[in-house]
Amino acid sequence: MTTTIFVCVSCRRGSGGNDESFDRPGPALVQAIESRLRDDGVAVTAVDCLAVCKRPCTVALCAADKWTYLIGDIDPDSHADEIVAAALSFAASDNGIVPWRERPPSFRKGVIARVPPANHKEMQ
Amino acid sequence: MTTTIFVCVSCRRGSGGNDESFDRPGPALVQAIESRLRDDGVAVTAVDCLAVCKRPCTVALCAADKWTYLIGDIDPDSHADEIVAAALSFAASDNGIVPWRERPPSFRKGVIARVPPANHKEMQ
Repeated sequence: MTTTIFVCVSCRRGSGGNDESFDRPGPALVQAIESRLRDDGVAVTAVDCLAVCKRPCTVALCAADKWTYLIGDIDPDSHADEIVAAALSFAASDNGIVPWRERPPSFRKGVIARVPPANHKEMQ
Repeated sequence: MTTTIFVCVSCRRGSGGNDESFDRPGPALVQAIESRLRDDGVAVTAVDCLAVCKRPCTVALCAADKWTYLIGDIDPDSHADEIVAAALSFAASDNGIVPWRERPPSFRKGVIARVPPANHKEMQ
C-alpha cells in the first residue's frame, strides 16, 4: 500500500522583514525528499496549495485506510531527512498513527491537523 | 457517494479569561448537525481529536475521490446551518472544491487545510 507525501509548492515564506520579500520553498522540498526516497513504497507528489499558507512548507502524509497527518513549518534544508523518516514510520504503521517516540522534532512541533480514514467509525 | 462531516469532540474552548475555564463544544455541534441532516447522503461522525486544538470546533468534510477540507472556529449555535449547507455543496461538487460564492462565511474564514484525494496526480 503506497504512502504519499503531498508537498505544497504554493506556500510563500517570508525571507525578509517585509511582505514583499519571500521565496517558495516547496519545490526544493519535493526535490530533497525525492533524492532521499528509495524503492520503499513511499511517493512524493507536489500539490498546488494545501491551504496552510501561514506555516510553510506544509506536507500531508496519506495512505488508504489510514489517518492523514498534515505537518507544517518544514524547511527543505533542515527537515527533509526527518520527513522521510516520518513517512517511513507512517508507512510501517497499521493506521497512520506514528508512535510519539518515532516522531522527529519537526513532526512533533508541526502538526497542523489530522483526518481519520474514510472508513473511520465512531467509538461507542 | 457518501459525504462525511467529521466533528472533533475533543476540542476545548476557553470560556473565561483563564486556562482553567473551558467547555467542549464538539458534542453539541454533532447534535446540531445531526438534527439538520435529511436523507441526503451526508453523515456526521464524532472524532476523538483532529489535532487543531487552537481553533475549536473543527470539522472535516470528506468523501471518496474528493479533496478533504478542514474548517475550524465553528460554533455549534452560530454555524451548524452553514456547515450543513457547506457539506451539501461539497457533496454536490465533482471534486470537493466548493465554489467561493457557495461558501458560507464560517467556511471562508475557517479553512485550516485541505488535502487532495488519494488518486491526485501532479499537474504537469
